[in-house]
Amino acid sequence: MDGSSRFELITLGDELLLGLTPNGHLTFIGNELRRHGVTLSRNVVIPDDADSIGRQFRESWARADVVLTTGGLGPTCDDRTRETIADVLGLKLEYDPAVEQAIEDRFNKLGLKMTPNNLKQAYKPKGAVVLENPHGTAPGLWVEKEGKILVMLPGPPNELQPMFLSVVLPKLKERSRLAQEETYLQIKTSGVGESSLETLLQPVFHKYPGLDVAFCAHPGQVDCRLSSPDHRISKEGLQAIADQCRDLLNANFICYGDDSTERIVSARLREKGQTLAVAESCTGGALASSFTDLPGASKFFSGAIICYNNDSKVQTLGIPECVLKQHGAVSPEVAVALATGVAEHLGADYGLSIAGFGGSCCCEKERQGGKVYIGLCTPEGIWSKEIRLVGATATIKQRAVSAALDWLRRSLFHQEEMSGLPVEWPKDEAKKFLRVAGSRL
Amino acid sequence: MDGSSRFELITLGDELLLGLTPNGHLTFIGNELRRHGVTLSRNVVIPDDADSIGRQFRESWARADVVLTTGGLGPTCDDRTRETIADVLGLKLEYDPAVEQAIEDRFNKLGLKMTPNNLKQAYKPKGAVVLENPHGTAPGLWVEKEGKILVMLPGPPNELQPMFLSVVLPKLKERSRLAQEETYLQIKTSGVGESSLETLLQPVFHKYPGLDVAFCAHPGQVDCRLSSPDHRISKEGLQAIADQCRDLLNANFICYGDDSTERIVSARLREKGQTLAVAESCTGGALASSFTDLPGASKFFSGAIICYNNDSKVQTLGIPECVLKQHGAVSPEVAVALATGVAEHLGADYGLSIAGFGGSCCCEKERQGGKVYIGLCTPEGIWSKEIRLVGATATIKQRAVSAALDWLRRSLFHQEEMSGLPVEWPKDEAKKFLRVAGSRL
Repeated sequence: MDGSSRFELITLGDELLLGLTPNGHLTFIGNELRRHGVTLSRNVVIPDDADSIGRQFRESWARADVVLTTGGLGPTCDDRTRETIADVLGLKLEYDPAVEQAIEDRFNKLGLKMTPNNLKQAYKPKGAVVLENPHGTAPGLWVEKEGKILVMLPGPPNELQPMFLSVVLPKLKERSRLAQEETYLQIKTSGVGESSLETLLQPVFHKYPGLDVAFCAHPGQVDCRLSSPDHRISKEGLQAIADQCRDLLNANFICYGDDSTERIVSARLREKGQTLAVAESCTGGALASSFTDLPGASKFFSGAIICYNNDSKVQTLGIPECVLKQHGAVSPEVAVALATGVAEHLGADYGLSIAGFGGSCCCEKERQGGKVYIGLCTPEGIWSKEIRLVGATATIKQRAVSAALDWLRRSLFHQEEMSGLPVEWPKDEAKKFLRVAGSRL
Repeated sequence: MDGSSRFELITLGDELLLGLTPNGHLTFIGNELRRHGVTLSRNVVIPDDADSIGRQFRESWARADVVLTTGGLGPTCDDRTRETIADVLGLKLEYDPAVEQAIEDRFNKLGLKMTPNNLKQAYKPKGAVVLENPHGTAPGLWVEKEGKILVMLPGPPNELQPMFLSVVLPKLKERSRLAQEETYLQIKTSGVGESSLETLLQPVFHKYPGLDVAFCAHPGQVDCRLSSPDHRISKEGLQAIADQCRDLLNANFICYGDDSTERIVSARLREKGQTLAVAESCTGGALASSFTDLPGASKFFSGAIICYNNDSKVQTLGIPECVLKQHGAVSPEVAVALATGVAEHLGADYGLSIAGFGGSCCCEKERQGGKVYIGLCTPEGIWSKEIRLVGATATIKQRAVSAALDWLRRSLFHQEEMSGLPVEWPKDEAKKFLRVAGSRL
């Protein structure tokens, strides 16, 4: 690859600018290009109207080597990409009977009648290659002109994504527009703030001229990305630098790359042949969902119980009413009882729980900030931990889930860290507590 | 308001272009501006480097009346927004001791030591107004020059969002840059494809010159947005047109605006004083999470059970092993047993279930496409419904969740639709079946 191709992505959609839909195309396409050694130079989100499309395309086409557009290829009156861009490029639209046939076949297969507005999708700029769309009616279009490449993709993600993977990436590779490997190396960390992280790692970074460092803070997590824009440092060199950072970070190092805490935790559990069950109150399914997003989750994930009120805690996990009354639903005792209860109930090796005010930690009480307890039951012992969270509903849920995942990670990879914690329950003790308290487990 | 202010949003972040993080700033800011009658004209995502920032800011500043930037104000070496933009505007940076004090106070409050790199954040372009950041160290900056407004916001969403709501919106209103009401009217629909929807509604649209219509397809749902760019049609006029569409759509009409199926369903349940419990297999918590994202969910949501394998179905809901063996885990019988079981177990009026291959419908089997059964238990009866889904893990989960939510909506608002379904279980019959099969409920 020449290494110098400039890629721009034009994303069409009033619904994106109006904040009604997140721009998933940028995430998907940016990520796929990165895996193939390309960093998108720019993404521009514009409205659906012909003026905006024409003006932005002209500007991007002048600056970039590869322009990707998403959206505006569909059957309805607000789909104007095809016509507008053909016009800018001075290409006539021509009718493609094969496309009409494909659209008709699709409607027949679904047992539906094709409405005439669909025929619009059978037109293409002269010389364009049609990219088949097995998941929808609007085909993609591939145009090469002036040594540049234009790829027009349909808007719906379930149509765009398979087309991008199965047709666009191979064609870009064929034209030598992709590299073989990632140009970035990312380190994920938890437990250290952004400025402290820089201060901690600076002594390593200072040794390497030509190293570019970027930080990105997420709730409870900071990513640090290393790159060498002028290629002075090789891929192996970047890895060696990253390894030094990992050693300095110790248990605060999560992983490299775009791996995630849930993935490395699940890989560890599968490797050990162990299973996990989850009990949640205020996060209401978000913790379970983060595990079940992973392929093959059934190999280690036993299930979850979402206890959204005291009744359901008593009913589904047999948490004794007296424990709830004495300590309150949001307490270290109940967090531990939930974690232990769900592990025993579902026959899992690990139990992880989040106990916060069900439905209210995430709304009524959010402004005053809420305490949340995480409970963890492992073959080695039982712990609980208090965290304090402030923010909007979604932020609180996300932070509580991150904290629980990170804690499970630490217990799986850095067992020694757990022993210094303020709240630790010897396993026998906790079991006794639950038995004495009248648990039905 | 003058109605003609052009807003552009520049979002900084390699991590966005690399597809590592979704661009939540566009969604948040776009949405907030829309609520105040402003449609963002453009969003540009660029890398963190000074060249890209300078070039893009120059271009946006020339075209727009209000430019918002996000990111690059932090303490680390890759934070270059402040310096670069001050340079383009020809403004000197000056040190603000009050900002230093605020940063130091924050560190002290958290019991942390301030690292020296934080001092960088105490500089501001000459004449800029500092926007306080109670959730982080980097303050926002507000600059007025040449009759235009520049707002520089910090990158972390938990810092940006409260600052935008409590300081930026009021200041924009003060400067008459916001309108009073939304300029769009959105109709959400389900059960009709995009082209059929246009064909169905075209006779209404044709009657109104000056009406602008846009469609946006999501999994299982199509949004239709009405607007009148030249203000020929009033807000009330748009509403009257939308009402005609609603009547044509009947049960396929979900709601207006940016309301959601889960919100209207939960409002209906709360209005009726009824409760809901959920049982999921392959969607693994995503259905429960969509309800528990709502404020006040505990008012109607009893809880959920995530059965990720047959063992957990038997253990937690007492689904008889013989039913699982005879019909298979993915069957109308098990979907019904899950819905009925979870409703009775958690004492809820409604039970909603999704039965697919736990952990495998979402991975191993995805390529061949999977059957998923939805089960619904209501005070009126018990139903199950087969849906067929193809796509990637996340798409399948999302589609199954949408389908289940939509079905609950139809049963709550359009009971008459349910009676025509191929699979309907008279309530007594289903209870008998579960009893006969040996249910422990």
